[in-house]
Amino acid sequence: MSHPLRRFVPILDWGRRYDRNALSNDLIAAVIVTIMLIPQSLAYALLAGLPPEAGIYASIAPIILYAVFGTSRALAVGPVAVVSLLTASTIGQVAEQGTAGYAVAALTLAFLSGAFLVLLGVLRLGFLANFLSHPVIAGFITASGILIAASQLKHILGVSAHGHTLPEMLLSIARHLHEINWITVGIGVLAAGFLFWVRANLKPLLKKLGAGPLLTDLLAKGGPVFAVVATTLAVWGLNLGEQGVRIVGDVPQSLPPLTLPGLSSDLIGALLLPAILISIIGFVESVSVAQTLAAKKRQRIDPDQELIGLGAANLGAAFTGGFPVTGGFSRSVVNFDAGAETPAAGIFTAVGLAVAAVALTPLVYFLPKATLAATIIVAVLSLVDFTILRKTWAYSRADFTAVAATILLTLGLGVEVGVASGVAISVLLHLYKTSSPHVAEVGLVPGTQHFRNILRHEVETVPALVTLRVDESLYFVNARFLEDLIQSRVTAGCEVRDVVLMFSAVNEVDYSALESLEAINARLRDMGVGLHLSEVKGPVMDRLRRSHLIEALNGEVFLSQYDAWQRFGVPKDVPQVAE
Amino acid sequence: MSHPLRRFVPILDWGRRYDRNALSNDLIAAVIVTIMLIPQSLAYALLAGLPPEAGIYASIAPIILYAVFGTSRALAVGPVAVVSLLTASTIGQVAEQGTAGYAVAALTLAFLSGAFLVLLGVLRLGFLANFLSHPVIAGFITASGILIAASQLKHILGVSAHGHTLPEMLLSIARHLHEINWITVGIGVLAAGFLFWVRANLKPLLKKLGAGPLLTDLLAKGGPVFAVVATTLAVWGLNLGEQGVRIVGDVPQSLPPLTLPGLSSDLIGALLLPAILISIIGFVESVSVAQTLAAKKRQRIDPDQELIGLGAANLGAAFTGGFPVTGGFSRSVVNFDAGAETPAAGIFTAVGLAVAAVALTPLVYFLPKATLAATIIVAVLSLVDFTILRKTWAYSRADFTAVAATILLTLGLGVEVGVASGVAISVLLHLYKTSSPHVAEVGLVPGTQHFRNILRHEVETVPALVTLRVDESLYFVNARFLEDLIQSRVTAGCEVRDVVLMFSAVNEVDYSALESLEAINARLRDMGVGLHLSEVKGPVMDRLRRSHLIEALNGEVFLSQYDAWQRFGVPKDVPQVAE
Repeated sequence: MSHPLRRFVPILDWGRRYDRNALSNDLIAAVIVTIMLIPQSLAYALLAGLPPEAGIYASIAPIILYAVFGTSRALAVGPVAVVSLLTASTIGQVAEQGTAGYAVAALTLAFLSGAFLVLLGVLRLGFLANFLSHPVIAGFITASGILIAASQLKHILGVSAHGHTLPEMLLSIARHLHEINWITVGIGVLAAGFLFWVRANLKPLLKKLGAGPLLTDLLAKGGPVFAVVATTLAVWGLNLGEQGVRIVGDVPQSLPPLTLPGLSSDLIGALLLPAILISIIGFVESVSVAQTLAAKKRQRIDPDQELIGLGAANLGAAFTGGFPVTGGFSRSVVNFDAGAETPAAGIFTAVGLAVAAVALTPLVYFLPKATLAATIIVAVLSLVDFTILRKTWAYSRADFTAVAATILLTLGLGVEVGVASGVAISVLLHLYKTSSPHVAEVGLVPGTQHFRNILRHEVETVPALVTLRVDESLYFVNARFLEDLIQSRVTAGCEVRDVVLMFSAVNEVDYSALESLEAINARLRDMGVGLHLSEVKGPVMDRLRRSHLIEALNGEVFLSQYDAWQRFGVPKDVPQVAE
Repeated sequence: MSHPLRRFVPILDWGRRYDRNALSNDLIAAVIVTIMLIPQSLAYALLAGLPPEAGIYASIAPIILYAVFGTSRALAVGPVAVVSLLTASTIGQVAEQGTAGYAVAALTLAFLSGAFLVLLGVLRLGFLANFLSHPVIAGFITASGILIAASQLKHILGVSAHGHTLPEMLLSIARHLHEINWITVGIGVLAAGFLFWVRANLKPLLKKLGAGPLLTDLLAKGGPVFAVVATTLAVWGLNLGEQGVRIVGDVPQSLPPLTLPGLSSDLIGALLLPAILISIIGFVESVSVAQTLAAKKRQRIDPDQELIGLGAANLGAAFTGGFPVTGGFSRSVVNFDAGAETPAAGIFTAVGLAVAAVALTPLVYFLPKATLAATIIVAVLSLVDFTILRKTWAYSRADFTAVAATILLTLGLGVEVGVASGVAISVLLHLYKTSSPHVAEVGLVPGTQHFRNILRHEVETVPALVTLRVDESLYFVNARFLEDLIQSRVTAGCEVRDVVLMFSAVNEVDYSALESLEAINARLRDMGVGLHLSEVKGPVMDRLRRSHLIEALNGEVFLSQYDAWQRFGVPKDVPQVAE
């Protein structure tokens, strides 16, 4: 078997070493994850505005395809909260919920998203995901958690409402408040309260009662299943459906169907940008989960291959009645904690869900939507974390601005505008920061060969020499800044005979900056002032040698600033004194 | 008079020192510039798709307002080629040429552009113009020159054609080639040939004939006027208008009228983005001209106040029947060379043009459009300069890519897409370059306290110490890169006990990078490896102290890399050897 093939199809690698021990561990993990995924899949389909079976379908083929192409041992792929919210918000703009067009658009979105991810992976462009800074991700996830919780309120209240921003959602709920169904409210509140209790108190309680760790885990993760069973039985037994409690209803008993995404140019045009956004957000979320889990076992994941794995999963979703998927945080952690050793655990989970799709779907007929909404709310509220605001405020106003803007714009204008603005704001703030770089005038730290800022340290200087340490790469955004700065520094100090630009922190000089340096050189020559460079890094020097700057330079290039100091800094006709 | 007012209204400053000598110099310059501007204004109105008088109007109020608010002594403001082309391309999308809606849209475009410039100026956001890198500007100007020349071909051929991209224009001309009017072609070719000859040969010839410098200048700049007069007389005398030669026709004899821009939200929505683009391009063009001319007399301009000056000029154009204006290169150089000392020269030019608007407009009735087209073509072809491709190719592939993309996209998809893509490509290439920064492993240059790349210099190292000099600011785009790099370097070298990150070139550590450093610190601690920092710049250290990284650091922060070397680099139990 050739090596490149194994790189692109990791299952060929780990599959050959698969043994009995790994099999039993993977099987146990699969059982736990399957139990957890059944209600979760139904709930995220509801969140995405799709029929409940779509959630199950979206967890079967994708999980298998990721197991074949992905590199993480523990990542569990399927519908996740944030991506489902993005799906609902995107498709809501091209089709009405409940129509055939809506389901087709979901398939198309998954298809475009999968194709884009595979393309990025093949071109090895995974670094693009880095454009989402940590603060933007943190802000976006927090705001999304709030939006998701708000979007589920209508199911808890039993009213019809809509909207893709927080004000829209709340206003719409307020307008429909007269439709409120108190039995639904009762079910929703009880289910949510129970789930919060399970999350906070069940594990310690079971431990105190002396339950084994596997049983504890199963019971804790089984909380949503219990809520589903209990409320379904209540609705069935008390005939609450006739009291206006909205229920899941008929779910077809079927394996995932073969479906075709719609590929009309109108639909593609409308969904392409959102698909790119969903892909990148899904990828970033998934890779952070996968990296965290891999680091715990000193394993590595390959981000570019992850793109292919997730892309394949989404293509799978597009052709089997699903919607956009990615690696989920909670399901992956459960999978990892339950002892999954290889992606085979994912394959067994898929089998479990396929069985559920065929055998268990009639049982959810009486399941109230309020219960599903309660499981979503309890799950997503753990994503909401405003401490990022405090942390970034303390560290950097620019990062704080990015977080705050992302949160506010996501809540106020919707997920797509929010995250796109977050990225744009991060990039603009970075460019703004580098547009007027820190430039320190430096002098010699006495007794060393080391130069530091004259304003921060006791250093030696001489009036005829100005040494400027430029603390930024020089490129188009700040090229003119340096021109202005040197002009004003040199005209201000009439004794100046030589200017040394210390390039220890200059990592790039682009063509715009080269032209600015040439202009500076020409002006200083006219003024009879020498221009010198010191500590120019190898890659920067290589490039400057290809220009005319070095031969035209009205001065010299010194390997170290100390060499320049020995030439100009030590006064020749007076005894050397420290200033 | 208070100082802040004088800062915002520079005329209050230079106006108080105005004397007789400056007056006479300014008057001479104004006469020369006026003669040059009459045909140029008519021509650029034609280029913008507007009636000829709009060009004159756009040169009167704007030039006066710039004289009041601008800071350049020599800049001449009015319609310029590139901005006129952008105007035509923008307005062509919302109205038909020749309709009242078209003229109103031009006013609105000037209004929005002026308002945006004033806003930027008041907020002191002039640095935004730096986002246009030198290569993008060079590529854009070259491509615009070609587009403008191509757009005038139809007037030379006497055919009707349209289009905003080079292929569109050429195809459209080809389709209308049967309409060709050979008399028009004759006029156009003769006029263009004459103007090329004047540009290349007249000055040397006059000098050889012993003409004085002022006369030489007047005659050389008067070339277009001569062409205008000669072809107008020919059309009138030979009755060529009846042979199908298109002429300028009726031009109202009037001072600039009072006009109101259309401010419907539809129009503003359609024109806002193009207005921003036009403002920034016009500003960049204008500021480079103004800076070049100011440097020749050791004067300075204030870019933020320039925004206000140019903004006022555009607002003036919007209310007096004009269209977007900016500081023009050729007219400013002529103004400067003719001896203009203060912005009063501009005011006198405006008076000259006002006289022309009232008295001379009937004389241009028989002026053939082909002559105006010839003056435009000769003027813009001097903008076309492909050497930027060779220069950037030699220096940097990234800059070359930006130039080439800007040229191709401007020619192929139009000016707006071209320049916007140029900016986007520059920014993306910059982010891409910084996304995988150069990281050098360094060692001690023997006999010094200086550290350089082990791959480029003969340096001392010890196996237990890895010193990495990070040649880039650490921020979200490259935060994960460093994590991966250190992980692989440390696992590869099992003897490594300490890692020193030399931060001499790290000018910023943003919140994303801080989180990555915390992750690196935690991982190295788990592996029993120390993590140290050296040569951390003041501003970076200030910020890191506000985080938990420094207290949690599994190692120390050294002022200089040499301090770190003395601690870890000199083996303690074996005699020191250079490797």
